[in-house]
Amino acid sequence: MIGAENLVRALLAGGVEVCFANPGTSEMHFLAALDRVSGMRCVLGLFEGVVTGAADGYARMLDRPACTLLHLGPGLANGLSNLHNAMRAHSPVVNIIGDHATYHRRHDAPLTSDIEGAARPFSHWVRTSENAASAALDGMAAVAAALSAPGRIASLILPADTAWTEVPEERLPPAPLATPRARPADAAIDAAARLLLSSEPTAIVLAGSATRAEALEFAGQIAVKTGAKLLAQTHTARLSRGAGRVPVDRIPYPVDQALAALAGFKNLILVGAKAPVAFFAYPDKPSELSPPGAHIHTLARAEHDIPYALAALAHAVKADKVPVPVGGFEPADRPTGAITPEKLATLIAATLPDHAIVVDESITTGRAFLPLTGAARPHEWLLGTGGSIGYAMPVSIGAAIACPDRKVVTLESDGSGLYMPQALWTQARQNLNILTLIFANRKYQILRNEMQNVGVSNVGPVASALLDIDKPAIDWVGLARSFGVEAFRAETMDELGRRIDAGLAMTGPCLIEVVL
Amino acid sequence: MIGAENLVRALLAGGVEVCFANPGTSEMHFLAALDRVSGMRCVLGLFEGVVTGAADGYARMLDRPACTLLHLGPGLANGLSNLHNAMRAHSPVVNIIGDHATYHRRHDAPLTSDIEGAARPFSHWVRTSENAASAALDGMAAVAAALSAPGRIASLILPADTAWTEVPEERLPPAPLATPRARPADAAIDAAARLLLSSEPTAIVLAGSATRAEALEFAGQIAVKTGAKLLAQTHTARLSRGAGRVPVDRIPYPVDQALAALAGFKNLILVGAKAPVAFFAYPDKPSELSPPGAHIHTLARAEHDIPYALAALAHAVKADKVPVPVGGFEPADRPTGAITPEKLATLIAATLPDHAIVVDESITTGRAFLPLTGAARPHEWLLGTGGSIGYAMPVSIGAAIACPDRKVVTLESDGSGLYMPQALWTQARQNLNILTLIFANRKYQILRNEMQNVGVSNVGPVASALLDIDKPAIDWVGLARSFGVEAFRAETMDELGRRIDAGLAMTGPCLIEVVL
Repeated sequence: MIGAENLVRALLAGGVEVCFANPGTSEMHFLAALDRVSGMRCVLGLFEGVVTGAADGYARMLDRPACTLLHLGPGLANGLSNLHNAMRAHSPVVNIIGDHATYHRRHDAPLTSDIEGAARPFSHWVRTSENAASAALDGMAAVAAALSAPGRIASLILPADTAWTEVPEERLPPAPLATPRARPADAAIDAAARLLLSSEPTAIVLAGSATRAEALEFAGQIAVKTGAKLLAQTHTARLSRGAGRVPVDRIPYPVDQALAALAGFKNLILVGAKAPVAFFAYPDKPSELSPPGAHIHTLARAEHDIPYALAALAHAVKADKVPVPVGGFEPADRPTGAITPEKLATLIAATLPDHAIVVDESITTGRAFLPLTGAARPHEWLLGTGGSIGYAMPVSIGAAIACPDRKVVTLESDGSGLYMPQALWTQARQNLNILTLIFANRKYQILRNEMQNVGVSNVGPVASALLDIDKPAIDWVGLARSFGVEAFRAETMDELGRRIDAGLAMTGPCLIEVVL
Repeated sequence: MIGAENLVRALLAGGVEVCFANPGTSEMHFLAALDRVSGMRCVLGLFEGVVTGAADGYARMLDRPACTLLHLGPGLANGLSNLHNAMRAHSPVVNIIGDHATYHRRHDAPLTSDIEGAARPFSHWVRTSENAASAALDGMAAVAAALSAPGRIASLILPADTAWTEVPEERLPPAPLATPRARPADAAIDAAARLLLSSEPTAIVLAGSATRAEALEFAGQIAVKTGAKLLAQTHTARLSRGAGRVPVDRIPYPVDQALAALAGFKNLILVGAKAPVAFFAYPDKPSELSPPGAHIHTLARAEHDIPYALAALAHAVKADKVPVPVGGFEPADRPTGAITPEKLATLIAATLPDHAIVVDESITTGRAFLPLTGAARPHEWLLGTGGSIGYAMPVSIGAAIACPDRKVVTLESDGSGLYMPQALWTQARQNLNILTLIFANRKYQILRNEMQNVGVSNVGPVASALLDIDKPAIDWVGLARSFGVEAFRAETMDELGRRIDAGLAMTGPCLIEVVL
């Protein structure tokens, strides 16, 4: 048995059942091991960002890691930006990064680089597996690191000779399980209860597992009982929404709107969230968004047992028997005529299938989507967490593989979708049930807004040419079809409605270019 | 005047005239400065790897840096793999990486990461410009660092408030020039001369500026006079070739072929090259490729004045008056019928225009290209240097912008081209004279070979599915057209010949999918 086989056995024993891969020569023995030890589903990406983004999406839906397979330093580098998002989403991910054989490194062959150094800024845990005898234990340690609360990025570097050297079949230790999550101290719960019962205006800011259905139930009881306002952190990994779910508003992205949403609260109770801060600094706007003088209290951090914390708080404020009124599915009439962001939101709300997974990177086009889709059928809404652009199409792949019985709807702006369009090929190859809407305004609209926000009122021709992506306009239908994904263009709401119906009815991926 | 304006002034004064950009919010003031200070040509890439690869190509042709404009840690991360190649090519590059305002960092907003940490493994020089008053000097220092021999990667991190703060117009220091290159010691030249005159079989291994036309003239004289064999290092950034140029064989990539090419030499003289090593380690093959017991002598390192070193050596062996026989343009008949790698090489040799720039990432399809194209018209042949895949289409952009009067011919394998296909859009937007041939074998053929090389003779179905990129086959014609690049498919040599003629005759980019 070679080291790579022991490693694959360890990953499988640790519950890692999917490998998103873009391999090279140094990973060939790991590939061979994937055939010798059965049980790992392997999914090829044409680019490493597709691979790491898919692992993020998988983890967001299942709370356990997939592994990635990446080729030395540059292969890892291509996957780092989506690992940044995964870190911020608290997604457990195990990266397997091939390296030169240990004895070959000193020759500084062209593909040599400081892999540990490259991994560290985007990983919580980094280790090089220095010999085949330790491969299994290193793999187990990586899985355990990934599963440690609230979900972490573990990067295991696998030199080629660690992978290929013959060793005895390792007796695997017991599989690591997700670390039982610590409960916040009673004092934190009592203090939160006192704030809620103080009759001062209080907001509960939710993120991480606090924006999942189970936790939201308790949060809803607390809100009903105490009058507290529920707010989702602007960037939370996954928000349970729609009919039957406790509604929660998201703190808006634009600073002025965020300040308005938070104005007047005397207390902010943080549950898996951080004190609200501006995404970017602007010359004349604050970095901290909490109202001046507001008391900020942490009920639970991301790594805590958040459902427990909210249940205990509900009990402490005597809300645990309170019924929470939730809405049903209320589709508005399908909008017709010219396409507008608000009509798009209404159509999305009307058409989302039961338990759909929405992956949202709609940026400026989608500002109205969350406010106007609360009455859709029950669904999960995945958001960008780290601000690294191009995450949605890769994350959709992982979500679709994690949940083959659900429909994934990707809401993608054209600028963002162009970072990793190769993701469409993996969607086609795996025949994934992903409907992608591309909002084609043919510019980086957010940057045109930001120019104003940072005080640049007259955008000159040089800057302007860096903010538009027309000339030539990108043909998304042709692009998707070139990767084997069925695609259509819609220029009216009527046309779009028909295309969405057809796209949702089919098996496999479909893309609609929504021309704005 | 804001800090960003002083920085742009400094870059321009330092001879940086092109900015390859993929900006975000934190770079908005730098963009505004690009309009206020005239002279910088700005080129938008839809993905950061396109941007850094273009800077590499530009530097390879002009030996001076372009700057890149990248958006925080993830934006940099997306550009790192092509910076790895640029490092290995000794290309001077100045990266400008936007960051949060200095006072905003401590809030750990979602897009915060350790940018210096991410830059360091792929940069020779890293600095954060901590205030607007130092922006100009920091910019100058970055240019000086990039220009230091043999050409380096300088990464300057620009916090948003450094960019936007008002400061006086900085009096710029004298522009940095490329550091005069050190000459190797006389003893190194004398020792090389003694080896060459020893009558022992000797090879001269050339890389970096040693494979450019000027240096090759002297190398050719030495070879004629002493009988030494000229060999180009497998991965050299740029090789001057074709009619009128001193011919030089490249050390082959496959280990067994490399060993054969080097067998029998008692002496290796290194000129800008390193002692030959295997690209990867293989279980039963050596890492070091030099013949056992061979004497390895360094005449000049990459950072030395290599033309001087070779001229001095030519003088030392009394070769400096020796005429060097060079070949003329000798086109073979155009091959017809089914497409084979050898016929492709013959057709390329027959059609390359005068002073074309070839960017070669043809991997397995192209193994015969260098051996069979020596009698083409004079041209420059750019090679992958760091082994990071997907470099060719981005590098072509930079080469085309550096040399608008030359035709760029990109020889791209389909697997490699799929890492950064968005590069095609920039080729269209800038109307660059780039003809791209995609060699579509619809598999990672090199990895199928490598499976054999590492001793895996039976590739199982799991691994096999990670090595093929058919199912679905990618429609390169549709893909290129979706980005605004005219494209055609060729399935016979006759068809390909006609398409190449047409592609070379047109202005702007063109792509031909060569179906293998």
